[in-house]
This record gives sequence, C-alpha cells and structure tokens, in this order.
Amino acid sequence: MTERDVYLHDIPLEEARARMRQALQEAGLWRALVAEEVRLEDALGRVTAEPVWAGLSSPNFHSAAMDGYALRAEASAHASPTQPVELSLGLQAEYVDTGDPLPIWADAVVPIEATQPLRDKAGGVRGVEIRAGLAPWTNVRAMGEDIVASELVLPAGQRLRPVDLGAIASAGRARVRVARRPRVAIIPSGDELIPPGTVPRRGEIVEFNSLVLAAQVAEWGGAPTRFPIVKDDLEAVRAALEAAAREADLVLVNAGSSAGSEDYTARAIEMLGRVLVHGVAVRPGHPVIFGMIRSRQGDLGREVPVFGVPGFPASAALTGEIFVRPLLERWLGLPPAVFEEVEAVLTRKVHSPLGDDEYLRVSVGEVRGRMVAAPLARGAGVLTSLVRADGVVRIPRMTQGLQAGEVVRVTLYRPQAEIRRSIVHIGSHDLTLDLLSQHLGEHGVRLISANAGSVGGLVALRRGEAHLAGCHLLDPATGEYNLRSIGEYLPGLEVVLVAFVGRAQGLMVAHGNPKGITSLTDLGREEVRFVNRQRGAGTRVLLDYHLEKLGIDAARVRGYEREVVTHLAVAVDVASGVADCGLGIAAAAQALGLDFVPVAEERYDLVIPAEEWEGARLAPLRAVLADARFREAVAALPGYDVGRMGELVTRVG
Amino acid sequence: MTERDVYLHDIPLEEARARMRQALQEAGLWRALVAEEVRLEDALGRVTAEPVWAGLSSPNFHSAAMDGYALRAEASAHASPTQPVELSLGLQAEYVDTGDPLPIWADAVVPIEATQPLRDKAGGVRGVEIRAGLAPWTNVRAMGEDIVASELVLPAGQRLRPVDLGAIASAGRARVRVARRPRVAIIPSGDELIPPGTVPRRGEIVEFNSLVLAAQVAEWGGAPTRFPIVKDDLEAVRAALEAAAREADLVLVNAGSSAGSEDYTARAIEMLGRVLVHGVAVRPGHPVIFGMIRSRQGDLGREVPVFGVPGFPASAALTGEIFVRPLLERWLGLPPAVFEEVEAVLTRKVHSPLGDDEYLRVSVGEVRGRMVAAPLARGAGVLTSLVRADGVVRIPRMTQGLQAGEVVRVTLYRPQAEIRRSIVHIGSHDLTLDLLSQHLGEHGVRLISANAGSVGGLVALRRGEAHLAGCHLLDPATGEYNLRSIGEYLPGLEVVLVAFVGRAQGLMVAHGNPKGITSLTDLGREEVRFVNRQRGAGTRVLLDYHLEKLGIDAARVRGYEREVVTHLAVAVDVASGVADCGLGIAAAAQALGLDFVPVAEERYDLVIPAEEWEGARLAPLRAVLADARFREAVAALPGYDVGRMGELVTRVG
Repeated sequence: MTERDVYLHDIPLEEARARMRQALQEAGLWRALVAEEVRLEDALGRVTAEPVWAGLSSPNFHSAAMDGYALRAEASAHASPTQPVELSLGLQAEYVDTGDPLPIWADAVVPIEATQPLRDKAGGVRGVEIRAGLAPWTNVRAMGEDIVASELVLPAGQRLRPVDLGAIASAGRARVRVARRPRVAIIPSGDELIPPGTVPRRGEIVEFNSLVLAAQVAEWGGAPTRFPIVKDDLEAVRAALEAAAREADLVLVNAGSSAGSEDYTARAIEMLGRVLVHGVAVRPGHPVIFGMIRSRQGDLGREVPVFGVPGFPASAALTGEIFVRPLLERWLGLPPAVFEEVEAVLTRKVHSPLGDDEYLRVSVGEVRGRMVAAPLARGAGVLTSLVRADGVVRIPRMTQGLQAGEVVRVTLYRPQAEIRRSIVHIGSHDLTLDLLSQHLGEHGVRLISANAGSVGGLVALRRGEAHLAGCHLLDPATGEYNLRSIGEYLPGLEVVLVAFVGRAQGLMVAHGNPKGITSLTDLGREEVRFVNRQRGAGTRVLLDYHLEKLGIDAARVRGYEREVVTHLAVAVDVASGVADCGLGIAAAAQALGLDFVPVAEERYDLVIPAEEWEGARLAPLRAVLADARFREAVAALPGYDVGRMGELVTRVG
Repeated sequence: MTERDVYLHDIPLEEARARMRQALQEAGLWRALVAEEVRLEDALGRVTAEPVWAGLSSPNFHSAAMDGYALRAEASAHASPTQPVELSLGLQAEYVDTGDPLPIWADAVVPIEATQPLRDKAGGVRGVEIRAGLAPWTNVRAMGEDIVASELVLPAGQRLRPVDLGAIASAGRARVRVARRPRVAIIPSGDELIPPGTVPRRGEIVEFNSLVLAAQVAEWGGAPTRFPIVKDDLEAVRAALEAAAREADLVLVNAGSSAGSEDYTARAIEMLGRVLVHGVAVRPGHPVIFGMIRSRQGDLGREVPVFGVPGFPASAALTGEIFVRPLLERWLGLPPAVFEEVEAVLTRKVHSPLGDDEYLRVSVGEVRGRMVAAPLARGAGVLTSLVRADGVVRIPRMTQGLQAGEVVRVTLYRPQAEIRRSIVHIGSHDLTLDLLSQHLGEHGVRLISANAGSVGGLVALRRGEAHLAGCHLLDPATGEYNLRSIGEYLPGLEVVLVAFVGRAQGLMVAHGNPKGITSLTDLGREEVRFVNRQRGAGTRVLLDYHLEKLGIDAARVRGYEREVVTHLAVAVDVASGVADCGLGIAAAAQALGLDFVPVAEERYDLVIPAEEWEGARLAPLRAVLADARFREAVAALPGYDVGRMGELVTRVG
C-alpha cells in the first residue's frame, strides 16, 4: 500500500466528470474557445475552427499534363503509323510544357516523344507529324481536377497535417481559422521540491511533474506556462493561483507529495471561488481537486477552472490524461481522442480496490500468436512504469480485480505494429538486460522485460507468455546449471538453452565492509542483518544451497524473511542501511558504490522455445549475441564473463 | 493519363534507394547526425542520441507513503482492537507527512486515521495508540522504488514523450543529449508559381508544395527553411542551390510542374556536383532527382544531398514520404517508422503500369465486419486524395494491377479505431454530402463518400461495401423514384429508404445564357455542346428519359459522349467553355456562377440496409437528419427542399 486507501470525500470518476462538466457549462466554458486566424506556415498541428470551403478551383484552368503539342483531338482522328497526320504550328498545334494552360481551341495534348518535327526550308520547325489518334481530353489536366470552388476542403475540428495545409492553399487561402491554444498555467507547490538537475538532499524531491504536465498540455494542443515552485503556505498558494488565473484558461496546482500542500490547494481555491470535487475514487490519482475561481480583469470577472493535481508522478500523469486532455479537446473543438484497443491475456492476477476505477499499466507483446499483457508496478510513485507501459487496462469500480489468464481490453499507447514486433523476456533479473535492450533497440526492436525470477520465467514459457527466460538455477545434486529445471518445468516443450553470461555472485556490503563480512558463514552472526531474494529466484536457490552446505539454519539468519525482487533492490537495502548484506551480482554492488565479497561463479543462460529461437522475431537477438560491441559492453561491467555468449548449450525436448 | 509514362532514365525504386544510400555512405552521411544537449523543457518530441542511465535513485531515500507515524514494526506486533499498544512520541513514534524521509530507526508508517492520540496533562500529544500490528515496510516508499541509480531510463533513438521527460529529471538530470534537428532547405522553382493567397491568373499556379514539404520535415523532426520562389533559369536555380547548401543538411528543389524547371534542377546539380538518380519508376512521383553537391565553407568543403522533388502535389508529398522521411529517421537515429497495417477488400479494379511501384491512396471503412478499401483519384495532381486518404496500398512492380474483391494490405494513415467508426457512403453525388460530412464530424464520425452514381451505390450495397447509398433513380414507367431500382438491384436485402432532399435538376449554362438555352429541346441544336454524366448516374437516367419523351436522338446531341462523374464537374465544363450546357443541380450552377434553367424536381433519398439503419454506427446520422441546424444549412443552398428529410419512406425486403 503506497497510497491512502480512504479519502473522506472521494467520489466516483463519473460523478466527478459530471460535476466538472456542469460547472463548466454553467460558466459557458464547455465549448470550443474563440478562434484565431493563423498563416498556413504556422498552422501545422492546429485545429480547424470552422469548415474550410474552396474559394478557388484547383487547377483553375485546363492545362497540359505532359510536355508536347496542344491540338484538337478531331484533327488526329485518322492518324496511324502508316498514315501519319501533319499539323501546322500555330494553326493546328501549339507547343505546351506540363502545367501550361491549354489554348482555348484545343482539347488534347500529344506528348513530344510521340511526334516528329516537320521543318521548313530554313530548318525551322513548321509543324509536327503524329502517328496515332488521340481521344478528346487526353493528357489534359482538367480545371477543378483537384478541387472545385465551393467544395469542402476540410471539416471543422480537424488537426492540420502537412497535406491539409497544401489543400487549403490550393483552394485559394493563405490563412486558416483555428482554435486558439488553451493557455494552461502550472504551479508546482511543496517545501520539499527542488528543480531538476539539483542533487536532492535527504527529504528533498526533484520537481518534474510540472515538466510532464507542461509537455502533455503542449502535445494535446495547449500552451503551457510553468510557474516557479511555491512553498507550502496558504497565502503563497493563493497568490500564485490568483496571478496564474489572470492569464490562463486553466490552472493546474501540483501538490508536492505531502498531504499538507494538497490541503493548501483546496483552501486557496475556496478563498477565490469554490471546490467542486475533492478526491476521486480512481487510482493512481485519488487526491484530485477540481474547482472554479473568479479572476478579475479590470471591471470584468471571469471564471477559471482549477485542478489540484496529486503529487505522485503516476497520479499526476494520469490526472492529465483523464481530466485535462478531454477538457483541452473540448476547447479545441476536437472529437475525443480514439485510442487503439486490443484484447490480451493477463499474465498475472491483479487485486483492485472495489470502490475505485483503476488504470493498470501493462507491457504488451505477442507470444505464440496471442497478445499477452504483463502488469507493471502499480505504485502511484512509479513513473518508470508509465515510461515502460505499452498500454493501460481499466479495471472498473465494483470489480475486485482480474485473474491470471483473463482476457482484458488494453488501450494502447504505442502502435500495435510496434508492439507485435517486441521481444518478451520474463525471468531472472540481470543488469545486462538493460544493455541488451539498448542493443536490440538499434535493430528497431523493443525488449520487454519482467522480473519474475528464474522459476517464474520457466513457468511463463510453459504458459506461452514469453519468448525467452533468463535463468540461473543451480542443481544442488550435480552443481550444473538450468538443465534439470528445464526438464522439471517444461516437460514436452522443445527448447534451446543458449549461453548468455557467466557472472560472479557474492555478498554486497557497505563501503569499507564495516561489519567485517567475509563469507556466507557470517550470516549466522546475530548482529548481521541480511536482505533476501524472493522464492523462485536463482540467487535464492544458490543461497539456500550454500546455507545447507554450511549447516546454517535459515531461521537463524536475521532478515531472511525480507524478500526483494532484483539485484539492485538488494543493493538499495544495503546502501540505505536497511540491511548489512545481501547476495547478488558484482555489477549491482558497483552501481551503488558497495563492496563485494565473491561467493560463487554461476551461469546465467537464456531458455528459449526452439521454434522461437529459429524464427524471424528473434533474428535481432541472435545478431546482438554475435555482436562484438555488445560483448565488449557486457564485459566492461564488473563480474561478467562473455566467453560462451550465444553458444547453443543444448536442445531439450 | 496525367503523367508522362516513359522517362528515359527511370530506375526501379529499390535501385534508386540503393544508389542514394551508397552515395550517402561514401560521404559519411548515412548515420545519425552529431548530437546536442537540450534542456528537458525543450526536449519534447526530440530523439535521444544515447541511452539515458540513471544518475540518482528515485526516490533517493526511504519515505513515508502516507501521513501518519513512523515506527518500528516490531513495536506494533501485539496490537489488536482489544489490546491496543501505546507508543511514545519521539522515542517510538514520529509524525511524518507523505513523502517525508523515514527516520533511520523506523521501518513502517501507521496512517494517522488508524491511531488515537494520547495526551499529557497539559493536553499536548505525548503518544499514540494503535490497534493493529503492521508488517515491516508497510506504507514505506522504498528508496529506488521508481528507479535505481545505474538503471537504464531510456534507450537511444527514443522520441521523447511527456513521461520520458519526467523520468529523466527524476533520474537526476536537467538536460538530455538528443539528435540535432536535420536542417532542410526547400527551394520552390517555376515561372508559373505565385504565393498562396494570391488569385492566380490563367497559367499561374499557387505554390504550396514548399508548405507541405516544410510541414512534413517539421513533423518528422527536421528543421525546415523555405526559400523564395526561383524563376525557371539555370543560373538562378544554381545560385539558390549553392546558397541553400551552405546552411543545410539536405536541399529539396521543388520543380514547378513544367518539365523545364525539372531540367534546370538536374543541370544545376551537375554544375555543383553529380546527379545519381534522374527518374524513379514510382507513381505518383516519376521525375524524382537525387544528387550530391559540394558546399564550401571557408577552406572546408562538405557534400550535401539534394532531391529534385516533382511538381505535382501528390508526387511531391509522396517523395517526402518515401525518400525524405527515411533519411531524416537515419539522421535522427530513429528506427524506421512502423505503420499500422490492415487487410481490406478492394472495392474496384485498379490497373497499374507493369514497370512502376505504385502507391494507391484508398479510403477505408468497416462494413458488415469486413474492412473495405475504396481507391481514390490517382492523378499526381490530386492533392485532395491525400487529404481524404485513410491509407495507401503498395502495388509492386511487375504487377498489372488489382482485381475488385481482392484482399490487399493497407498501410494506415489514421488510427484503426477511428477508421472502424467511419460511415461509408457510395452512390450518387450531391453537394449536401459535404454538409453532412461536416455535421457528422461534430459527432466525432467521419463520412467517407465515393461518387459512383445511383446505380453504382446500389451495387456497392449489394456487395457489402457501403453503409448507405444516395440514390435518385426515376422509374420512367411510374414517375416514382428509387423503389423499382431497389427491387431490381437489391433482391433479398432488407433495406430502408430514407428521405433526404428534394432538389431541382436543370441545365447549367454560362452566365447570361449566351446560347439562349431554355429547355432540353435545345440539346437538338447543332451549335449547342452538351456535357453528360456517366452511365448509372440518376441524372443520366433523367436525361435519357426526357430525351426519349421529347423524341430527341441521343446520337444527335453534341457532347453526349463526354461523361463526367459529379455535378461540379459538369459545372466546370460549362464554366470553362468546354460545353455550353449540362444537366445538374442548382447548387452546382450557383457554386461556379452559372445560370440555371430548371427541368425537373426529383427526390434524392438514402438507401440503407435495415440492420445498419437501426444500429449504433448510424446513430450520428439519425441525429444529424433530425437536427434543425443541418436542415437549415441544406435549405440555404439553392434548389433544395428539406421538408421530408429523415422520413422513413418505406422498408423493402
């Protein structure tokens, strides 16, 4: 739980939308803004405020569609290769370049290459000979071929594309009436906020929501203005709100993540107008505020809508999508955006609070001909899950959640064609997966990667939810890696085991190793706090194997029950002092400036259904594994051995 | 035929691409341009030039995820509603707002609403009482929850979206390295060209290709510069090219439609460098030129690629799409754009020249669960077909064309979801269809309209290619409209006939009626030239009915064999002096300033499969037909009667 579960005033999404709409209607603001006229060269992406009717025909005269001679088709009627017809220049034929107006007496053009010149005694051309008849209007570009005066060139509410600009110009105009860009003021507020690029001290947070909101507004056709960060102070928030409303059509106050700032927003709105919505049962998002304030301009006053946008980044971005965007569309006279949707199979169970509309971000890929959707981290604070998301699944109110294997409708953020080419990895986490992602990107392919541990990856392969699984499962009986587990988890599935990296596993400890940890034996010490990996992770298997060999009872290891799901999460716990040590890879230790006590060398391989390995989809993966640049990049990280990378270890099934 | 069929130097598209690529590789220009660093607030839509790795973890410390009291979970272990646990402030519990750093000794947060304050004698809070145990790390937002230092935030070659900017800031950066915008100079050339907004005299053409090309370049991530129009003069073109190359990464010279200007482009390139491609077997497009010129800057020289872009607007736009866009993508380090594709049934036969790769623009809609693609006008000069296109079908070389009913792959220009909601009209042409399109647009629905004549529309309904057909077919036996034809063309299909408009048909004649035409009887006069509508058009049926009644032999009518397919095309022929009169509707005559001699009143109805009429897709149509604003707009056009609009005339089948 990373959000407050209960807000006193939370109302359902639809109720919130209805209140907003009514207030805007009453203020005369639920309609397109006043239009403005712009030059065509400034009109790309703007939205037509009224239909564009052609003022001119294009072309505006009959013209030659080829270089050649204009003539009357009648005159050519009997021409043939054996009985050519001669036409005199001036009287019966006139030279025209492509695009030239057709002489008024002519009704066809013979291409120059289909004629022979006839010369007079001085060598000048006096006429041409033609050897085939022409139908009337051959090679003539008719007046109005493209557009006829009075025709509809473009409807109102059309976002202008490059060809649209040409069509408007061609219909006789140099300017076009478009919806004015809605002006949106964005006020970040919070004592803990610092500008991007500043290194945060403990308790400080980099302010970037205003950057995201401004970019959203710009992308959706508005004109954003970012205000300086305002402190958590009622009078400061009120003053900023008042100043912003003077110039804006809409004001967004972005609370810091503290509840205090949020309260200031609501109270400041009350001072200048009224709060209509305070808390919406939507997640991420909950503490959304909507109000209307009065803004004075000379003797005139007008009402200005205000959103209090929640401070958690995923909540802020979603508030933009579901509240701000529809309002901007309305103001621009655009029809509501239509998103591509696709049906996909959910890879794991998701609980959702009964009272909320939830927007669940998912990765989407195509595996064995089915679309599969893997839920991403759901915390309101997890902006990267928005960055990684391919789409969103709406879980309506009064639904408890979704089952694994359930078919869901995904609203896509990316083109389906791009998604269908993605490579889906589910399995063990390794830092080189980021490098792999980067190198696959150079081949125009995305790597979707979900950390489910080695066993989780094999299970995903069995269920047809992934194209490959990173795996490092030690067989305690033989000391061999992965082979036994494949037999166990993937009976009957033909798979290949492809070598990826050898890597050092060891204990990450704080810089300088203050607790003097030198081997796994130290986990038995009372004052050593450990952080563990989840069940099913290869690193957990490795730990349990060694603890048993050393005769250490897991119940005696302090922190054995704290499970995290990546090497970096282990490193974070050690770096932040939550634990004194954790088992993981050298690269993770180095990333956070930790010391590293080696414990074992292990194999991290890729398990891939044979059919996929040989197919077109994984061709970029095969290319990257064979690419010396990729090997060098991996080898540059501490603790990695790339000697066998790409080697086919075995084929099973 | 509106394009030159044979170019001496035409080479296949793939050959042209290979030559361009090789020349660019040799010049070291077939790779991403040098990068530049920009502030995040200026980075929306720019393309990452290198991977972005996190420099900071986000959040950078463990923090409270709710407002409440930080505590050690251990201390709460035995709390229950019957046996609450008391914690002292300062020692065992500390108040935290959401986002505040967790005290180093704490490992959980209890929400304020789950506590009871304990007061000291002075009434101050000395502690809190809790009634339920907490697991460690409850309500704590872990350091690195969003991103851990060293993780990949974004790969190279990613076009930056709003959330990406937030993620980069959150990972500790205020700036990002992006590909420099490729600078593209655009030179329009041609004696006949005049700027947009000027009224063209005979022989003049409004120059708008540079507007389209500049907008394309901007949309694809480049920085366009439009140069003034250059006359058809070799030295002028050479000088402009030289000047443009000084500042640009790429120069586009856009010939006027005359072959002359095109030749100047090639010759000017030869003077400054070399021509590598002169004519590509692609349509629309043929006369594409590609060359490399040398540009001196001080003592240094560099090579600059140049395209000679054909003058016809559809050719120019396609040249942008298939040649300029991939080069810009390369320079930006973007993977080639992936377009949505869909399979659709082609509604009519299309011939295509054997030697050319053809890009056929189509309208696409969904009818009876199938996607159907209707080819649009194909002339290189028809820019409006690009405006109306939903997608493009590539007809490869060595293919003679495509059959009606053939399944084709359409590369989509619009989201599929938008296309699936479109309403497809095939049938008779009427000027009010533009108004209908405009009003449907207000409901967020597009009207796709293909003019196939009344009979063509009924045939399309039978084949399941349209949702409705505009129809005005007179039954000569009864004088009634449409009923008999429905029975004849749609046996067994349940359809409704919905009244749309009554309208006046008559003879359009030049202003002042110089030939004194007063009725259809005048068509028998030797000196009266007529322009006809195509077979299957209701207007043609009306004409033939009246000619027979009047005893006029069609063979005696001059111009009877000249067939055009819309009322406006008839008006254009009369306005341009090609014909003296033509039969059509009053609104078309008025649109081009012609006089109108009424001949008959007729019904123009909508024929709609019953299932469609009652379905959700046509709900917006039903709403528009009932909308007084729409009726008024139609009634304002000359010759229209809207008295029965929307009335269900009958149900058949």
